[in-house]
Amino acid sequence: MSAHPKPAELAAYMQTVGRSARQAGRVMARATTQAKNAALGALAERIERDATALLEANREDLGHARAAGLEPALVDRLTLDDRGIAAMAEGVRQIATLPDPIGEITDLRMRPSGIQVGRMRVPLGVVGIIYEARPNVTADAAALCLKSGNAVILRGGSEAWRSNQAIARCLGAALAAAGLPEAAAQVVATTDRAAVGHLITMPEWVDVIVPRGGRGLIERIAGEARVPVIKHLDGVCHVYVDGAADSDKAMRIALNAKTQRYGTCNTMETLLVDAEIADRLLPELGRRFEAAGVTLRGCPRTCALLPGSTAATEADWSTEYLAPILAVRVVDGLDAAIDHINTYGSGHTDAIVTQDYSRAQRFLREVDASSVMVNASTRFADGHEYGLGAEIGISTDKFHARGPVGLEGLTSLKWVVLGDGHVRI
Amino acid sequence: MSAHPKPAELAAYMQTVGRSARQAGRVMARATTQAKNAALGALAERIERDATALLEANREDLGHARAAGLEPALVDRLTLDDRGIAAMAEGVRQIATLPDPIGEITDLRMRPSGIQVGRMRVPLGVVGIIYEARPNVTADAAALCLKSGNAVILRGGSEAWRSNQAIARCLGAALAAAGLPEAAAQVVATTDRAAVGHLITMPEWVDVIVPRGGRGLIERIAGEARVPVIKHLDGVCHVYVDGAADSDKAMRIALNAKTQRYGTCNTMETLLVDAEIADRLLPELGRRFEAAGVTLRGCPRTCALLPGSTAATEADWSTEYLAPILAVRVVDGLDAAIDHINTYGSGHTDAIVTQDYSRAQRFLREVDASSVMVNASTRFADGHEYGLGAEIGISTDKFHARGPVGLEGLTSLKWVVLGDGHVRI
Repeated sequence: MSAHPKPAELAAYMQTVGRSARQAGRVMARATTQAKNAALGALAERIERDATALLEANREDLGHARAAGLEPALVDRLTLDDRGIAAMAEGVRQIATLPDPIGEITDLRMRPSGIQVGRMRVPLGVVGIIYEARPNVTADAAALCLKSGNAVILRGGSEAWRSNQAIARCLGAALAAAGLPEAAAQVVATTDRAAVGHLITMPEWVDVIVPRGGRGLIERIAGEARVPVIKHLDGVCHVYVDGAADSDKAMRIALNAKTQRYGTCNTMETLLVDAEIADRLLPELGRRFEAAGVTLRGCPRTCALLPGSTAATEADWSTEYLAPILAVRVVDGLDAAIDHINTYGSGHTDAIVTQDYSRAQRFLREVDASSVMVNASTRFADGHEYGLGAEIGISTDKFHARGPVGLEGLTSLKWVVLGDGHVRI
Repeated sequence: MSAHPKPAELAAYMQTVGRSARQAGRVMARATTQAKNAALGALAERIERDATALLEANREDLGHARAAGLEPALVDRLTLDDRGIAAMAEGVRQIATLPDPIGEITDLRMRPSGIQVGRMRVPLGVVGIIYEARPNVTADAAALCLKSGNAVILRGGSEAWRSNQAIARCLGAALAAAGLPEAAAQVVATTDRAAVGHLITMPEWVDVIVPRGGRGLIERIAGEARVPVIKHLDGVCHVYVDGAADSDKAMRIALNAKTQRYGTCNTMETLLVDAEIADRLLPELGRRFEAAGVTLRGCPRTCALLPGSTAATEADWSTEYLAPILAVRVVDGLDAAIDHINTYGSGHTDAIVTQDYSRAQRFLREVDASSVMVNASTRFADGHEYGLGAEIGISTDKFHARGPVGLEGLTSLKWVVLGDGHVRI
């Protein structure tokens, strides 16, 4: 496949990729846990053994990226070093240690007709991963898909082309070593952007698309895809400090939710403070945020209490800053807080700080977000912290998978019926 | 709303319907089980009390339908009588008796960080139902959506316009009587076909579309929708009689799977018979099918054993007859059977008849269908038989819900995190 294939050539190539992925997926669906883990173990070893070749491929990518004047942040995400290689191998090994979700039968119940009915966890089939510069996604996402019995088609950014091809060789060798089909993990062998358009419109070969990257990439894919997309849009996360909050916990949680890391989707972007506690809490909390270098944008009542803050505009309530900026609003109790969150939030992660049992219960039930928390920092919303082992992404949708998506999100349940000659009357 | 509103008027109307459904959905999400059941009880009562008005509205619909020369089958589906009214009310009462899935928290586990992490079942939000002539779907689908804490927008066929408006009045009165918002169940008040186009492209107001009707309707909706669709396409169901089958069970199951009802999606359309048992089984089974009036279309080996059968073409293996026609193929063992099913089947329901434990296990694991069965008739694939109480539809997709979809398919899981001042380190 050339870098700029003719449209018909590209279409035929993508059909071949899809068809062979579908065939390999059938083999993966019935592969034993042992074989899948053997492939992951071989992949980790191969990554370590081929470190020199991987670093060399990556150096070439970096050379082209710098020559093309790519942003430093992008170059940073593209860069592999010895530590990155070791982390990649370690990540694959960790996925091998996770319990295999496939084949588990749950809720096998006897029905009045005499049949037993339950559900078996099965792979989705073929997963398409579309990502940007990070080459470690190639190994990480492939490992999650293979462990969950799926075939995977990987389409990384063109900047990481050589790095991804080098990792693809490790994947192919590892699958072959475990007696599994190499087509179970394919890296698209062209940088032609039109390949993405094919990948997301082949429902006959691809069962789900997981885009990993910026909002622009995800919106474009979701808009054009003809297969389901596990998508992650904004994280406009809230902490609501209730009138019945413990002030120490409130300050600790609010500071952690904002300042532990600024650039993550589970970072707090808006702080809501109950009017009942605002004059006791906000002056001290404001000082601590200022000391941490966080700029505050407040509602009129906040500005009156915090002279250092500037006036928030309507747009601030729905902005994901990903920066040391925080919107602050004083609200009149729980109902106003829930209303604000359900109106302006993005349904990602929202927390209440309160000692009041009933208000905590209402917040959990009524806030419409993928994660709802009581007396904990929003920064906990993460597959590793939740015990998923690893995550393929965080879904801000309600359909199929919501919040951090681990192996289970790459599976489905089919019905199992056991009879002994039973017929319907 | 007039029958033929101007495009701008229709667009504004559908936006109003969507927005008010979203608001009502938030109230439904936090409604108590008691309130939801009270609404369903009131709906059943109201349907019974308004029987005369419902029958009168239905008679008007039938008059127009006959005058327009609608097919008898369609007129049949459109017809309501006293028994139909009673069944509608009874169906709603049964849904009221189902356990409320909303609010249940499962798997609340302690994590090493000290937080507890679990998942809470929550409604999807707003469900759009698009259906054809049957007016009973209006009450039945609305009841399922309300019980699962959703708001619902119903769009029935224009033939059932007056019947559906009459049922809509019952719905509104029942919701009001239970103190719930009337907008939680809205019947689209126009027969303009463009309303469907709006309904399936309002992701801001509608979370999922459930089309109930023929393949044409479902394919069109799936192709144009901008929100997830729970869709049900073909049911090309198989029974595979293994060489190690008990002949009596095999004959009983094969006959039941084909002849118990011809027009249902879980009816067997292709019978696969292991070459090992074909000459013992097929002659007798063929006689029984012929006695039942079933036409057989066979592969060459089948035709040699059953002179009464005609030669099957390639197209027969993927045809959903919904009629007393059966395709029959002799295959060389389990692998050939699984291969045939995964190639030609529609992933709906497939059964093996065998006494061999290992082959049964392999069939369950390796056949890619929403229901896989051992020694049971495919006709069992049904929400009621599976213990779901009622079904909103049968999904042939793998994503989100697969197979018969009951209340659970109209819900999602959100993550719940409980801490006591916990922050991330």
